[in-house]
Amino acid sequence: MRATIKDVAKLAGVSVASISRYLNNKGYISDVTKEKIKQAIHELNYQPNEVARALFKRQTKTIGVIIPNIRIYFFAELVNYIEYFASKIGFRIMLCNTDYSSEREKEYLEMLKNHQIDGIILASHTLPVEKYKSLQLPVVSIDRYLDDTIPLITSDNELGGKLAAEKLYQSGCRKVGYFGLMNDKQNVTTIRYESFKKYCDEFGLEVIAEQPEYKKDINGQKHSDLELVRNYLASHKKLEGLFTVDPLALAAIRVCQENGVKIPTDFQIIGYDDLAFAEMTFPSITTIKQPISQQAEHAISKLLQLMNGEEVPSRTILPVELIERESTINI
Amino acid sequence: MRATIKDVAKLAGVSVASISRYLNNKGYISDVTKEKIKQAIHELNYQPNEVARALFKRQTKTIGVIIPNIRIYFFAELVNYIEYFASKIGFRIMLCNTDYSSEREKEYLEMLKNHQIDGIILASHTLPVEKYKSLQLPVVSIDRYLDDTIPLITSDNELGGKLAAEKLYQSGCRKVGYFGLMNDKQNVTTIRYESFKKYCDEFGLEVIAEQPEYKKDINGQKHSDLELVRNYLASHKKLEGLFTVDPLALAAIRVCQENGVKIPTDFQIIGYDDLAFAEMTFPSITTIKQPISQQAEHAISKLLQLMNGEEVPSRTILPVELIERESTINI
Repeated sequence: MRATIKDVAKLAGVSVASISRYLNNKGYISDVTKEKIKQAIHELNYQPNEVARALFKRQTKTIGVIIPNIRIYFFAELVNYIEYFASKIGFRIMLCNTDYSSEREKEYLEMLKNHQIDGIILASHTLPVEKYKSLQLPVVSIDRYLDDTIPLITSDNELGGKLAAEKLYQSGCRKVGYFGLMNDKQNVTTIRYESFKKYCDEFGLEVIAEQPEYKKDINGQKHSDLELVRNYLASHKKLEGLFTVDPLALAAIRVCQENGVKIPTDFQIIGYDDLAFAEMTFPSITTIKQPISQQAEHAISKLLQLMNGEEVPSRTILPVELIERESTINI
Repeated sequence: MRATIKDVAKLAGVSVASISRYLNNKGYISDVTKEKIKQAIHELNYQPNEVARALFKRQTKTIGVIIPNIRIYFFAELVNYIEYFASKIGFRIMLCNTDYSSEREKEYLEMLKNHQIDGIILASHTLPVEKYKSLQLPVVSIDRYLDDTIPLITSDNELGGKLAAEKLYQSGCRKVGYFGLMNDKQNVTTIRYESFKKYCDEFGLEVIAEQPEYKKDINGQKHSDLELVRNYLASHKKLEGLFTVDPLALAAIRVCQENGVKIPTDFQIIGYDDLAFAEMTFPSITTIKQPISQQAEHAISKLLQLMNGEEVPSRTILPVELIERESTINI
């Protein structure tokens, strides 16, 4: 029969409340008591995680998920998996779209605090890391580097950038575009860009990089992806290929077709993420596949570990792979 | 100066708690007391709604949003707007993906109940309406007809079906396909289909209708939209046009292009929803635009009215419009 919390309390000679404090890492417990509890847990081969969970008096089984906007297909897929893995362990998610606004982010943090949620998954932020630390809540971050105390779950953007550079070079391009984020040091997309640039330089592949300037309003406004890509490609007519993200790749395919530019013979495109629509366009989109489902699964499991007072690696970097489809010349 | 809750209590000669019970419709109050409170509220020209809100002791300012899956782009856009309008009035949303599983839906209802949420927006359900009624919570439904006690927010699917039939007929089609839901009496998509069929019959337009059979598993699995559409179109080679939803229209465009079928000269396509990508494909998708933002706004405002004990119309039907793009012949 498995040991209960009472068995541990009895063996350690302390109250159940002390063990609760110990497991939840809340309130004062002397070092001597800590040692006794540790020993008792060990001797009884006790499962402190489950106990810790059961003991969380104020646990609301709710996780706040902070993203820029659920209309962005990457986040729709990510949140789908976060919700899936959260519900598997009996947690719900509170969806918070910040629209990149510090105001909205601040309001949400205030709300989440009042709501006594159990933890936060952060996939967008504009506020300084101190704001998150001051919440004294378990926080994990997806694709945003805050500091080493907040565990980061991401995919191998360095490899992603390298794979794209290699692919475009091997497919015969000598002058290519990069259209995506590149200036935000906390966003792993910048690592992707820097790696892409570095390998392009190595291969002697010229890169014209630009960052799309999104409008911030959301209500009723369409994404202006198409317009952004149209302007970018119109200003750089000598490009032979493009590295971007899947939604902008979709727009780039349309812009090429509008102008009679043949894909992949005249122009090659590599996206990022492998979103659901990437195989449905014509030509279908060659892309760097991120393991979105695994990112979500790790975010949930790491958050749970933090809730249980366990140590969590400061970075979890998941593998990516090149998916060759029709928007590149595949040898 | 506006009357306060205390003024009402004083005038009615009852406790503030009684008025709270009255306004929240919770706990026992005798008919005599009810009458006194009613009179006092009337005499003081009291604003019971705001008071009711302030008095909700247990209000969590949380709305449960039940959808099949946030990866389905329509729901990503809908939830984006629900979140937006909810946050404007200080509410958060709890996202619940049911994946069309009664089990998951049941688990969620149980969770939502325990969590003391303030209301539910239902955009998918498999459980009988009684389950929702037994929660004794304000519920509004989007695009799903449960019964007349649960307010339905929808768009004019009858007009949508008619517009599509008219458009395909006027563009010269004489044999068209319908690929979408058609058998679920509670889903307004069935109204859309029935209207489409009715007008096609009227115009002498032959319709080959079929319902896509989705697989239910979600984890790691891609939508099989492409495969479904490929099979459907392969079995019905004589079609001159198709009425479906935007994501399947995207797949249909690819399938036509794979087979060298020219759009719109050889084959015309009309989607539904006007999702963000509909203008980005090549050809771009002619579609029936649903006012998704308005549907979300009405769902939130109607839910708030229910929370405040106000009357709400049993149906709110918002307008739709035909957006002519490149996948049809536009005269």
